[in-house]
Amino acid sequence: MKLVTFATGGQAAIGRVEEGGILPLPFGFGSMIDLINHWPEREAQVRNVTQTTALEKLPLKEAILLPPIPRPGKILAIGLNYADHIREMGGEIPERQVWFCKQPTAANGPFQPIILPKVAREVDYEAELVAVIGKGGRHISREEAPNHVFGYCVGNDVSVRDWQMATSQWMLGKSFDTHAPFGPWITTADEIGDPHGLGVRAFVNGELRQDSDTSNLVFDLWEQIALVSQVMTLEPGDLIFTGTPGGVGMGFKPPRYLGDGDIVRIEIDRLGTIEAVCEREE
Amino acid sequence: MKLVTFATGGQAAIGRVEEGGILPLPFGFGSMIDLINHWPEREAQVRNVTQTTALEKLPLKEAILLPPIPRPGKILAIGLNYADHIREMGGEIPERQVWFCKQPTAANGPFQPIILPKVAREVDYEAELVAVIGKGGRHISREEAPNHVFGYCVGNDVSVRDWQMATSQWMLGKSFDTHAPFGPWITTADEIGDPHGLGVRAFVNGELRQDSDTSNLVFDLWEQIALVSQVMTLEPGDLIFTGTPGGVGMGFKPPRYLGDGDIVRIEIDRLGTIEAVCEREE
Repeated sequence: MKLVTFATGGQAAIGRVEEGGILPLPFGFGSMIDLINHWPEREAQVRNVTQTTALEKLPLKEAILLPPIPRPGKILAIGLNYADHIREMGGEIPERQVWFCKQPTAANGPFQPIILPKVAREVDYEAELVAVIGKGGRHISREEAPNHVFGYCVGNDVSVRDWQMATSQWMLGKSFDTHAPFGPWITTADEIGDPHGLGVRAFVNGELRQDSDTSNLVFDLWEQIALVSQVMTLEPGDLIFTGTPGGVGMGFKPPRYLGDGDIVRIEIDRLGTIEAVCEREE
Repeated sequence: MKLVTFATGGQAAIGRVEEGGILPLPFGFGSMIDLINHWPEREAQVRNVTQTTALEKLPLKEAILLPPIPRPGKILAIGLNYADHIREMGGEIPERQVWFCKQPTAANGPFQPIILPKVAREVDYEAELVAVIGKGGRHISREEAPNHVFGYCVGNDVSVRDWQMATSQWMLGKSFDTHAPFGPWITTADEIGDPHGLGVRAFVNGELRQDSDTSNLVFDLWEQIALVSQVMTLEPGDLIFTGTPGGVGMGFKPPRYLGDGDIVRIEIDRLGTIEAVCEREE
């Protein structure tokens, strides 16, 4: 199943994506996080919503898609997690997982502009598989981890390199407003099965820049969930950005950062495509 | 004014602290974040709540105080921001502000236990002034910054050093569940005026370990808000941990980390005291 959050009449609504458009879910289902929180009881009801019980179907092209989860409780992200990206960044494969985060205010819709901040010079793209936590928990084992994933999205871990590298800590450079686009929808985990064999690609103005496969993750998603949940309680709707492959702008000599009007397109097999125009902040 | 969030009948309620106890506010005021969001319209009403309009006054000693904001949208924190702490950590005064964060699930009440994780060896305390954002915004100038602070709390930026230093990024070591105790209440900004002259002290089992003053901040709160808001939209209820002075456990030779049963007490002039027992996770 594919689930979206979209704008309607100035509000956020959720729907199921089908051939021909979005089937809005009755408002009683609440927000996407509400739905994820009550998924065990609601899944069958959501599957049973049909044109007769729903509001009018909305053609996908007319829909304004919001971030599938407009305000995630956490946006966690692992760094240096594909061998080719580690090489281009000049590092070595880390023995331990390197975690940072993006602030929740960075969440952005799948087709909304990426703002190039006036205080930044080096804005970069990072194509990533994003996992959405379903059942929360702490001390989740590697074996149990798949049972805690609600679904998957395509994400862009937009990174302001001049801020990311200005101090030892990457957080500010990763947290500019609009710099966590994800979507276009959540594909539920049952539709994907093992997420470690999905092609991941990034294009800038139509030019292929990143082209890899989630089977190349250094630490796979299950190891990621196991480690992070040793530290903190994961909650429904939390996001995990699982790392980016080689080919980011910083890896080129000279670097190729994003400019005003550039179009960044990220696609992942079976999860869809997100695409954004870069706009210079005024 | 001093505002608390406390537990009553399994729920969170908010109240005003007075001599003799907590005056609960009528439920219509909502949560603390709701109140902060509507502060300009509600302030006078909150001041006017009296024993006759409120529920029964609750003696402070009987109250179970929750984190004043049970689930902050962001917990931002600046590192290396007192000269004596920078020296004990072996660094130099940074030219730029060094920002990291704690995950919102780390929020903890002012008198709740600090859990010593089974996966951690080196748990440390950091006494800090915490600012609570009132009016949100982006690109807030240094001059405008005071108008965006709702109030102040006492905080402990509990830090798991063996995790914090295991990779280049501090986030995991700063984000263990229960490791962001703050409170005991929010003292509104009008009561404090300039927050850069408040004594800050930490005691472990009654022994004074940290003893400084917020006038010693390398980057003051206004500079902090100005910088962070260049990056991200600050929102009502976001927290800023403003840095810790010298005297943390890691600074001793040999280091003096927290052990099972240790009592950590943090006090800041005019803002009150928080105190926690350390409990080993089972």
